[in-house]
Parts: sequence; structure tokens; C-alpha cells
Amino acid sequence: MTYCVGLKLDAGLVLLSDSRTNAGLDNISTYRKMFFFEEPGERVIVVTTAGSLSVTQTTMARLQEAIDDPDSDETTSIMQAGSMLQVATIIGATLHRTCREIAEQTRELNQQASASMIVAGQRRDGEMRMFLIYPQGNFIMATEDTPFLQIGEHKYGKPILDRVVTPETSLADAQKAVLLSMDSTLRSNLSVGMPLDLAVVERDDLRVSHRRRILEGDPAFMEMSAAWSAALRDSFGKVTI
Amino acid sequence: MTYCVGLKLDAGLVLLSDSRTNAGLDNISTYRKMFFFEEPGERVIVVTTAGSLSVTQTTMARLQEAIDDPDSDETTSIMQAGSMLQVATIIGATLHRTCREIAEQTRELNQQASASMIVAGQRRDGEMRMFLIYPQGNFIMATEDTPFLQIGEHKYGKPILDRVVTPETSLADAQKAVLLSMDSTLRSNLSVGMPLDLAVVERDDLRVSHRRRILEGDPAFMEMSAAWSAALRDSFGKVTI
Repeated sequence: MTYCVGLKLDAGLVLLSDSRTNAGLDNISTYRKMFFFEEPGERVIVVTTAGSLSVTQTTMARLQEAIDDPDSDETTSIMQAGSMLQVATIIGATLHRTCREIAEQTRELNQQASASMIVAGQRRDGEMRMFLIYPQGNFIMATEDTPFLQIGEHKYGKPILDRVVTPETSLADAQKAVLLSMDSTLRSNLSVGMPLDLAVVERDDLRVSHRRRILEGDPAFMEMSAAWSAALRDSFGKVTI
Repeated sequence: MTYCVGLKLDAGLVLLSDSRTNAGLDNISTYRKMFFFEEPGERVIVVTTAGSLSVTQTTMARLQEAIDDPDSDETTSIMQAGSMLQVATIIGATLHRTCREIAEQTRELNQQASASMIVAGQRRDGEMRMFLIYPQGNFIMATEDTPFLQIGEHKYGKPILDRVVTPETSLADAQKAVLLSMDSTLRSNLSVGMPLDLAVVERDDLRVSHRRRILEGDPAFMEMSAAWSAALRDSFGKVTI
């Protein structure tokens, strides 16, 4: 399992992913699930992934291969695509092809091989965009009404986002919101685990403005988690029914 | 879908259920999912149900039929059973038989017909007990370490329970906790809906000490919900990362 969340705000994009993968409960590993494609000043794309590792790794490798291919053009390379919509289309097509191929290979094992992704970014003179891409390659966009997208184990961490995130939320508050959302998920689902990858892309900055890896036992994260628990219990004491 | 939660505390039992059922998104109805079996001073049993309505209604009808049968004994009637463990065993067997029969009938439609239940109560000179009964008829018990059980859409409402519920929680706080847990679920899953049924069984009271139906637009519930949202946002403002 996995938990990734992305916010598209007036001030910029905020993404957070965990890094636990597991094949059964007795085979647990750490893999980064956040990927950056950046040409500072020109374009910035952040991708987070959830699902079968074989699908996501192959998809990411194919995207990179297309970027490196000297014959690539705006229909195959996400670094040449003319819009974020085109970026999402390329990633969707690559993801779908990979899902289909691996599903074919593993059919006789009756195993699932699927993945979904959050893709966010901006190119020069373009709008900031954030997409949730499904295994079939189609996608939806974050909007004013729904400024956040989630993949993987999304339920535990949704109530806090529902309550505090609007397009006007500041980037500082947004980072806090995604970290608290992750904190609730980490507590409830063993298959979501540290370290965490956090990225912020400020509007029109056209680069990854800020990135941070939060390791197990990170003092600031632990302090925030404890303070939030204390604040929740405190609030709980004050509410009456 | 459904959300039911039960707490087994030192001070007593607290149960809450929603009442929405749906067959698809365009066929929504209200059905009570909380049932009482009571012989005041002798025994009290509260059952909440999640799953296929045809399974839960048939199961409840069969339990009632066994109670009313003049030939019933402690192995067939939950009102004669010698312990709460025996009550859970009878309900588990009835539920499993019903699930199996209906699954058989609907097999050619390739439809799911399954249900699970929370069963809580106490009989004179016995301990308070709370069970989660699976469609297969087996069950688990609430314990000191895990004083709450959930069925149905359990994820959205779990973080608040994790943080505030311990065996020492008072019955007043427990009612608040289950209502806030339900509130988070109602916001996130359309297939969970008002009205709500709330029941409290105080330790050794051997009756339903307190029951309440909370209707759509209930002023106290709405006020609590708004106060909790405000308190959460307030807490959010105070936590730093």
C-alpha cells in the first residue's frame, strides 16, 4: 500500500508521499514514490506513484527513456510536451500500456498489477495543473472545488484535508495539512511507512522550490504529531453534545 | 454501505449506527441497523448490522423466531443462552447459515450477499462483552487494548477513536467520540446517512440505559459538528512544523 497526496493551491503545489512497499506482510522495503522532472525556469513536473512496483518502475523508466531519446518529440517526451495536459496524456498512455503488458504476463498467476499516479507541474507561460492518472490512462484534475488529490490508502487522512484545505490555504499550512493527513494514515495502516518525501512548487517558480525527506524519528515531525494529538484531545474536551 | 461502531468501556457499552441502505446510488432507503433484546434486570443485548439487507433482516428475523419458539433452549435462543459467548455463537451460526443460503440463491447473478454484526451486552452475574461477528460466523472480542469495534465504512472515523478512546473513557465522552467518528464518516461517504441510533448500556444496569435517535438536522448534533470543525481548525492553527 501507499499514501500520496497532492494539493493544488493558489500559491503553488504541495505533494507528499510515503515510501513503503510490501509484497505480503513479511516482505517490506523502502522505495521512493516521488519523482522530479525539472528544467528550471522552463518546466517542473512532480510525479507520485501508488500501486504495483513493477508497473510504476517500468512506467517511470519508459518516461525517462523517452526524454533521453534523441528522436523524441512533444508527443513522446514529457520534457517537450506543449502543455501539462499533454504531459498527463503521455504519462497516462505509458502507464496504461505498462499496466496492460504486466497484467498480461501475470494473468496466469491471477495477480493484480496496477498503479495510479498524481502528476503536478507547470511549464513557462502555462497554468499550474495537477492530475490523478488512473491505470487505464484516463485522468481527472484538481479544481477550485476539489483542491486535493489522493492515491493509495486515502481514507484515514481525508477528514483533516476536507476541513482545512481550500485554494487559499498558504503553502506553510498546506505542508502541515498533508503531514497531519499522513500522520493519521501512518497510525492506522502498517503498509504506509516512513520516510516521507515532501515537495513544494511555488506558483510560477518553475522549479521544485522546496523538497525534504522526513526520516523515521524526525524530531520536528514527531513533535508535530504529538502536538496534534494533544490539540485533538484538548479540542475533544471542549466540544459538548 | 454502513457505519457502526461499538465501545466497550469500564463504565459500560456505547453503540452507534447509521441507517442508510442503498442498492446502487439511485435507490437509497432508511432502515434501522440497531436491534435490542432486553429482559430488564436479567439480560440486555444490542446488535448492530452492516451488509446486505436481505442477509441482516433474515438473520434478525430468525433470531426472533428462535426466541419466540416454545421449544427453544439455551443453544437456539439468545434470550436463554447461558453466556454472552453463547449469544455470539448463536448469532454467528445464524448469520453464517443465512449468508450461505442467500449467496447460493444469488450465485448465478454473481452478486455479493454478506453481512457482519457487532453484538454487545451483559447477562445477570456475567461480564459485559462486545463481539464483531464475521459472515463466516466466527468472531473477535473487544478488549482492554482494543476497546472499540467497527463494521462497514470504518476508516474515516478511526483516527479520532484511536486518539481519544481508552477503557477509562467516561460514557459521556464515549458518546461524543462515536458521534464525532460518525460525523467524519458522514462527510466523506454518501452511502452512510442520518438518522443515527445511539445506545448506552451502563455496567450492571442490565437494560438499555439510554437510547436516542438523532434525526437529520438535529440541532445538538449540528452544533457539535460545527464546534468540532472549528476546534480542529483552531488546533490546526496552533500546531507548527
